Amino acid sequence: MSLTTSTTDPTRPFLIWQKVLDWAHEHYRYRSFTKDEKIPTRPGLLYLVHQGAVRMVGETQVGQKMGRRTSLASQAPKESSFLGLVSSGQPFEVVVQSPYLLQSISHVDQTSVIWMYWEDLDIWPHFRREVLESFRYQHQRMLLRLNALGQRRTIDRLYAFLTLLVQEHGESRDDGYYLPWVLTHSQIASAIGATRVTVTRSIGKLRQRGLIRVHGDGLLGLPLEESAKLPQTGT
Amino acid sequence: MSLTTSTTDPTRPFLIWQKVLDWAHEHYRYRSFTKDEKIPTRPGLLYLVHQGAVRMVGETQVGQKMGRRTSLASQAPKESSFLGLVSSGQPFEVVVQSPYLLQSISHVDQTSVIWMYWEDLDIWPHFRREVLESFRYQHQRMLLRLNALGQRRTIDRLYAFLTLLVQEHGESRDDGYYLPWVLTHSQIASAIGATRVTVTRSIGKLRQRGLIRVHGDGLLGLPLEESAKLPQTGT
Repeated sequence: MSLTTSTTDPTRPFLIWQKVLDWAHEHYRYRSFTKDEKIPTRPGLLYLVHQGAVRMVGETQVGQKMGRRTSLASQAPKESSFLGLVSSGQPFEVVVQSPYLLQSISHVDQTSVIWMYWEDLDIWPHFRREVLESFRYQHQRMLLRLNALGQRRTIDRLYAFLTLLVQEHGESRDDGYYLPWVLTHSQIASAIGATRVTVTRSIGKLRQRGLIRVHGDGLLGLPLEESAKLPQTGT
Repeated sequence: MSLTTSTTDPTRPFLIWQKVLDWAHEHYRYRSFTKDEKIPTRPGLLYLVHQGAVRMVGETQVGQKMGRRTSLASQAPKESSFLGLVSSGQPFEVVVQSPYLLQSISHVDQTSVIWMYWEDLDIWPHFRREVLESFRYQHQRMLLRLNALGQRRTIDRLYAFLTLLVQEHGESRDDGYYLPWVLTHSQIASAIGATRVTVTRSIGKLRQRGLIRVHGDGLLGLPLEESAKLPQTGT
């Protein structure tokens, strides 16, 4: 999923990407990462995904603090929750400080990232606007994600969560729309507040009912008739 | 919580609020709402909360569709989930289309809202920037919320959820920081994917352990020693 093939998506900033890319190479603000490599971030810097996908994860230190004091929390100290994926052409930033640990991790091999100060964007006012529009879009998607996670039954949360992910990142393939990369059941579990075992069982149920599909190599997707009903986000 | 008393929060746009207010009154783009009144919204319009607080809620039609077909969903058709609160000085917008129903509702009496087209903001480029910065801030807060909701135990989700809310909206009062308005246990339940009964029981447990406090009139808060440890969001 490279930039040049995704120009049909109006929510991603492309118009002057080539200029930005040139600038990034020239100023050594371009770096590629291997799968699951941590992407170092600093508050105040803006990051743009050029290729691949970036996984946002978090650690809930608040729960852990409570855990140490009162044994309420059951999570292992270093367990992290899956917060979302940023795909090519999209910006991200990590401005939150301790005790919340938000991190960005390369989700697939050959993930490339550009970084810059927000002030650097002043060179390209139009691009700056597009970046902010992209954050607006991500913001609306997050409201939908919160909506999905408000449901009581794990299987409902799971189905709504997968539907939103496929809608954002899915690619047409054979008989449906599929995510272009694998999500482990542990990662899904950490996103929807469930155990891995429950996620595996629920995915089985949803497959049996024909609501979701799994491609040979583990890619999750929705059948064509379901994805045809996918809503659009207006701007 | 009026604008003039909140100018210490650098994440909210105030600098030329008076000009914007004058403009809104002049162009009849200002309206007040009573508690729990629906605030009509249209995609493409930007809304600013002047006084009071706005509750964002959503209905998960995806789950309902699945429910009709396969009886997986247990929610009543019109049940809505609590997505968050927008307090005075903050912007919001609702751009998402069917089948996701996002709505904004006046959370307290005398909630006042200004609305405008995004293009109207071109009159005040600096204000436009502040509005977008405010969305950036909200965006980061949402990542933290997703992080909170990724926890498996309801009581962990509840505590993390309340901590984040108090951190964003809390006001100093006697022995701690308290939310300036009441949240019902049903609203909390719909935000963290739990039942009202579980929320009520868990709030009782957290109170017993001294982790949260409840003011006489039902306001939730954190004791001073806990809120002193609250993290700050850098920019």
